[in-house]
Amino acid sequence: MNLDIISIGDELLIGQTLNTNAHWIAAELDKIGFTIRQQTSISDNKEHIIETLSNVLEKSDVVLITGGLGPTNDDLTMPVLNDYFGGKLITDAAVYNDIEKLILGRGFEMNENNKRQALIPDNCKVVRNAHGTAPGLWFEQGDKVVVAMPGVPFEMKAMITDTVIPWLKEKYVLPEIVHQMVLTQGLPESKLAELIADWENQLPATIKLAYLPSPGRVKLRLSSKGKSRAEVQHKIDEQVAKLMQIIPQNIYSTDNSNLEEVIGKMLVQQKATLATAESCTGGYLAHLITSISGSSDYFKGSVISYANEIKINELGVKKSDLENFGAVSQQVVEQMALGVLKKFTVDYAVATSGIAGPTGGTAEKPVGTVWIAVANKNGVVSKQFTFGKLRSVNIERSAVAALGMLREVLQG
Amino acid sequence: MNLDIISIGDELLIGQTLNTNAHWIAAELDKIGFTIRQQTSISDNKEHIIETLSNVLEKSDVVLITGGLGPTNDDLTMPVLNDYFGGKLITDAAVYNDIEKLILGRGFEMNENNKRQALIPDNCKVVRNAHGTAPGLWFEQGDKVVVAMPGVPFEMKAMITDTVIPWLKEKYVLPEIVHQMVLTQGLPESKLAELIADWENQLPATIKLAYLPSPGRVKLRLSSKGKSRAEVQHKIDEQVAKLMQIIPQNIYSTDNSNLEEVIGKMLVQQKATLATAESCTGGYLAHLITSISGSSDYFKGSVISYANEIKINELGVKKSDLENFGAVSQQVVEQMALGVLKKFTVDYAVATSGIAGPTGGTAEKPVGTVWIAVANKNGVVSKQFTFGKLRSVNIERSAVAALGMLREVLQG
Repeated sequence: MNLDIISIGDELLIGQTLNTNAHWIAAELDKIGFTIRQQTSISDNKEHIIETLSNVLEKSDVVLITGGLGPTNDDLTMPVLNDYFGGKLITDAAVYNDIEKLILGRGFEMNENNKRQALIPDNCKVVRNAHGTAPGLWFEQGDKVVVAMPGVPFEMKAMITDTVIPWLKEKYVLPEIVHQMVLTQGLPESKLAELIADWENQLPATIKLAYLPSPGRVKLRLSSKGKSRAEVQHKIDEQVAKLMQIIPQNIYSTDNSNLEEVIGKMLVQQKATLATAESCTGGYLAHLITSISGSSDYFKGSVISYANEIKINELGVKKSDLENFGAVSQQVVEQMALGVLKKFTVDYAVATSGIAGPTGGTAEKPVGTVWIAVANKNGVVSKQFTFGKLRSVNIERSAVAALGMLREVLQG
Repeated sequence: MNLDIISIGDELLIGQTLNTNAHWIAAELDKIGFTIRQQTSISDNKEHIIETLSNVLEKSDVVLITGGLGPTNDDLTMPVLNDYFGGKLITDAAVYNDIEKLILGRGFEMNENNKRQALIPDNCKVVRNAHGTAPGLWFEQGDKVVVAMPGVPFEMKAMITDTVIPWLKEKYVLPEIVHQMVLTQGLPESKLAELIADWENQLPATIKLAYLPSPGRVKLRLSSKGKSRAEVQHKIDEQVAKLMQIIPQNIYSTDNSNLEEVIGKMLVQQKATLATAESCTGGYLAHLITSISGSSDYFKGSVISYANEIKINELGVKKSDLENFGAVSQQVVEQMALGVLKKFTVDYAVATSGIAGPTGGTAEKPVGTVWIAVANKNGVVSKQFTFGKLRSVNIERSAVAALGMLREVLQG
């Protein structure tokens, strides 16, 4: 079953916005058994939209379109599709209510732009938008389906997950495809590949392996297709079990839970509480932890101590140690962790101190030098890391490494 | 002058690799005056490559292709292009030397795959690859140009910058293009469009306007082309000046600086310091602030008070107010801001308290209810917001709204 993705928006063509939508859609629709034939990005131009749509509809069963559904004059997708499928625009009462609720909820009045967004072609089904004013449109032409959605990523994603995928599964018979994720942490891609080379070489030809690296982590994806989901899953499970024996310390998830979710579950299980004391991560570690719904059950808070006086006054770091060893040192990071453990009376505390860059490095402690400590009632462990030169990547890698160390301590 | 980008690679179509190449190429080629007509991603399939190339060559003057130039059997771009342009493959001595040097330098011997990469169609010019083994190929057909490059981003980027762009500038006369960004905050897209409708309608036809929304912000982009860059910029500046008079409070940047950068510059200018006290943003506000290099000059730290006891013990929030009004209230958020202002002895403090969701909402205070306060020596201001249902978006919008309020206070 072929599927085409069309992304509409001048911002894509001038290289202003990175097209993460097509990437995300491709991954999600591939997962449920579609073959993504082509991704096409075009500008907000009527003729080009029509030409592209009619071309790709010849080759694909399903066409998913994003972008150009906003309330402003440069948004052309709705009138163009209405013309293409020969419909009439009429106000959809349910959509009008959705929009009105959203706009009034934000403290604004319905204006003409908002009202215009409730004008829907009479020959399509509405894909409701739970998070924005632009509804999605589902057109059918014989056995083929064309769906238009807004380009705002979180609006589009909810529509695909909640409505488009269920409707597609209803309409088409799709092969069973299993993508098994194995999430690893603490090994660079090249080292990981070396460690698991023998395992990789003995994989059956029906199982495809992919390495998906991100700062501090590598996701492994094992993919296989078949008629029976249970059978495919069983063959994959056998291989995952073997892999578990090779790198047990580095695998933190096989159900695609991220590191902060895994840690949250462990803390809930242990009925334990957590706090952080952050310097170089500047709140990003606490942000990852609190991005998990329900984190208020175990996360009590954090002291972000960018200034040394806050390390001293709030976390009890010794002034003499700051002077003798510097803020980025084992002594200081351990005192930060122990300090917040005591201050916030929690069971576990994590601290970070490093040079995120691009300035602040020295010959002895170059940019990318990071100390991380984890404390609990038994004491404190700490470790030095040497990351790279990019500030944003150093912040991310520090937070991931801190979560990785916390996970090890939680495992005992 | 129209330009098409074709990205070849299965990893793009299954959503495994994000297509950053097309984005980067579009931005670079747009800058020098090309109109990017379309970006197309396809798999390593001979028929599909030929069909796509012949289609887009009808519409565009220049076609840039990346991917499928590697040394393995699934790399088809070279033989396909050789067939398409009717050439013969012969060993190119300069390319052979480049490859040999690179391979020997890495401590390997030349193998058959490496030798095969020096076989080049005899009707193209070679675009040398300074960082890898796969050379680029420059074909001309009448006034049109087709360039194939490897998909490895840093190899491709060096080839475009060092060779492709200089050669294109030699071959074509290109217009000057200006994209002016105007970044706004605090107005939903539909409300913004209403407020600036008259201004939008009076824009000269040569200036194109685009709305680019993200949570809590809308970027406006004014684009125009001409023969003289100074003249085009001048006409755009006139329009931006008019816009500034309509929504002066909402425009925070015309040089594409983000809100956290703008605030950083204002704090540096005022030689002022900043701290945050965060509940619902859970560190994300501090993370945005500290994502800016040099933020340690003005940002002292934060107290993330997820637990009420930390609001009381660390920030001096009155227990009775927490009990009477709840954590998400004007009383509590103002005390949080004033508390951290005093505790960290800073000039400005920002506090957030809200229900990020998905749980924790009530009829009176639904998910998405957020209070934000900004304090300085003159006192404290606070405001209630009602955002949506998604935890991650609520966190982002809260942080952006907090930065927006801080900016207003910093402006005085």
